[in-house]
Amino acid sequence: MNKRVILKQRPDGIPKKEDFEVRVDALQLPLKQGEILVKVEWISADPAQLVWISGVKSYMPPVRIGDTVRALGVGLIVNSHAAGFKVGTYVSGLLGWQEYCKVHVSKIERIPKNVNPSLFLGIFGITGLTSYVAIKVLGKVAKKQVVVISTAAGAVGSVAVQIAKKQVVVISTAAGAVGSVAVQIAKAEGCKVIGITGTASKVQWLKDIGISEVINYKTDNVASSLKTLCPEGIDLYLDNVGGEMLDAVLLNAKKGARMILCGAIQSYGQKKAQPLYMYPLVISKSLKMKGFIVTDYQNKFEEGLKYLGSLYEKGNLKYKEDVVDGLENAHTALQKLARGQNDGKMLIKVLHEAPKL
Amino acid sequence: MNKRVILKQRPDGIPKKEDFEVRVDALQLPLKQGEILVKVEWISADPAQLVWISGVKSYMPPVRIGDTVRALGVGLIVNSHAAGFKVGTYVSGLLGWQEYCKVHVSKIERIPKNVNPSLFLGIFGITGLTSYVAIKVLGKVAKKQVVVISTAAGAVGSVAVQIAKKQVVVISTAAGAVGSVAVQIAKAEGCKVIGITGTASKVQWLKDIGISEVINYKTDNVASSLKTLCPEGIDLYLDNVGGEMLDAVLLNAKKGARMILCGAIQSYGQKKAQPLYMYPLVISKSLKMKGFIVTDYQNKFEEGLKYLGSLYEKGNLKYKEDVVDGLENAHTALQKLARGQNDGKMLIKVLHEAPKL
Repeated sequence: MNKRVILKQRPDGIPKKEDFEVRVDALQLPLKQGEILVKVEWISADPAQLVWISGVKSYMPPVRIGDTVRALGVGLIVNSHAAGFKVGTYVSGLLGWQEYCKVHVSKIERIPKNVNPSLFLGIFGITGLTSYVAIKVLGKVAKKQVVVISTAAGAVGSVAVQIAKKQVVVISTAAGAVGSVAVQIAKAEGCKVIGITGTASKVQWLKDIGISEVINYKTDNVASSLKTLCPEGIDLYLDNVGGEMLDAVLLNAKKGARMILCGAIQSYGQKKAQPLYMYPLVISKSLKMKGFIVTDYQNKFEEGLKYLGSLYEKGNLKYKEDVVDGLENAHTALQKLARGQNDGKMLIKVLHEAPKL
Repeated sequence: MNKRVILKQRPDGIPKKEDFEVRVDALQLPLKQGEILVKVEWISADPAQLVWISGVKSYMPPVRIGDTVRALGVGLIVNSHAAGFKVGTYVSGLLGWQEYCKVHVSKIERIPKNVNPSLFLGIFGITGLTSYVAIKVLGKVAKKQVVVISTAAGAVGSVAVQIAKKQVVVISTAAGAVGSVAVQIAKAEGCKVIGITGTASKVQWLKDIGISEVINYKTDNVASSLKTLCPEGIDLYLDNVGGEMLDAVLLNAKKGARMILCGAIQSYGQKKAQPLYMYPLVISKSLKMKGFIVTDYQNKFEEGLKYLGSLYEKGNLKYKEDVVDGLENAHTALQKLARGQNDGKMLIKVLHEAPKL
């Protein structure tokens, strides 16, 4: 028997308990060639899921009514009909809101044994890779950016002064799963990092991980705070919000700055996105605005994981997990995410009360 | 004596006659070393001027109250104190709304004799170069884009089929000075070109220059017309409008499409830009949105002029000029531009009623 949670109806705004239904039904066994049975241990709650269940056409088809809720997860192989995928191996993939997942091995990835498996939903999963792609691949942030400035002010004539230019990087939902990794990457690359977040405890946590400049968008005016914190302007912005916050950053962007659009959480599940007004600045400031889907950058995943692993080993990649227990409570993980109330990477711990097989 | 038009007050919305004032004052002669005196013949009216006179900080400082209105122009050298700049040579530059312009040669360009000088404000000026940079440099449109598709459908096993992929290019204010050159470049590069414009006569003119697919945004629904004309989606959009029209294109953009933001005429002179709602599609469709200031691409001007010249010689670069006579009427050129009522490249012909020197 397999306990799973299906989508009963499309949420109107923030998902409610009534939008989902717990089902217990028999697993369709035996396994076919190439299939494995995974005992799901951890499920990831991600903003993209709010889009998937909303019915909006996106880079993935919407979750259909009656289908198991789509979600990334990690779990243990408990039965295998695939060479090279032994029982006892941890895997990650779109396992869904369920206790057991029968899946073809072409759709999953093996994960190493020596690291806590939930990290492969966080800093070493799509979350961390999203931050990597945003900051390093698309944001092109790199250490030791040197600008050579020639000056004729010296007594001995013109001299060339080398100045290591500090890039100004602004990150929204900075205490979130993607944001906090992005913050630490930008910091490791020697940038001046400004984090934007929404609660005093998140401000504190960002300061704990070494980001001294934090804006609380619920109590501070974002546009004027940015002006004070970086009068020289912003080079790179990682946006997870859209609307007003993106407008505030556009107002403070440096000429030629990059705006990497990673999410628009304020607009997920809404009929209409929050309006954007400052987009004509994209022209007058010669800005580049780039959106991306992390799965389009699979060719960067290997270098990304190496990079994140090295940051972690040096103790420069801190993280927090916010865990909801049990599939019955899985919807509360999405609620916390939609309300910005999660404190770290939002996860669901699957409780296998009694052996089902 | 020199007749000139100064900015008297900042326009509230569309510029009015009262926002300007005609002055006649003495030219400050003699010329200093490196300076020339230019008899201004043609003045260009460009959307950017609406920004310059609005007082909004942009890539150029605003025109100050009391200053001669800033504008591109072409004229004849009538007096010279600079080597290599002979009397009788045509030059172009920011000559302003005036009969005569005293200027240092570092700020102007010589233009060839064998072509109508007003073309250096249009197809061979900043206008044409803007179209070139948008479509060729940033839009990366190129002839004979070939996509190789492997198929296993053939009786003899897998074959490689070469398909010259037609890029779908959408251009707003397509009958305008920048738009109409952009349309003809994209057509010359073998693209499927869809023009958006606002009057029946502009629709007709676009059809005359060979663009069969034209949307009249005043009578057609842009979003649904685009869906009908290019169900396969849009690869490249040249935006001069912003707001609703940009939203309609975002809705119909192909994954990975480029949105080149060149102007936002609906928002110039307005307190607030028209809101944009569909920007979260930049994420889910992995779009790139790039704004630019043509003067940042001066290193592309030489190749751009060669390209435009060759198109012109082949008879593939048609244009129209819409001429306002006399400095007293210069403001009506900006009005027509702001209202989209100009029919071709908007120009002011300076009438030198009697010799002033």
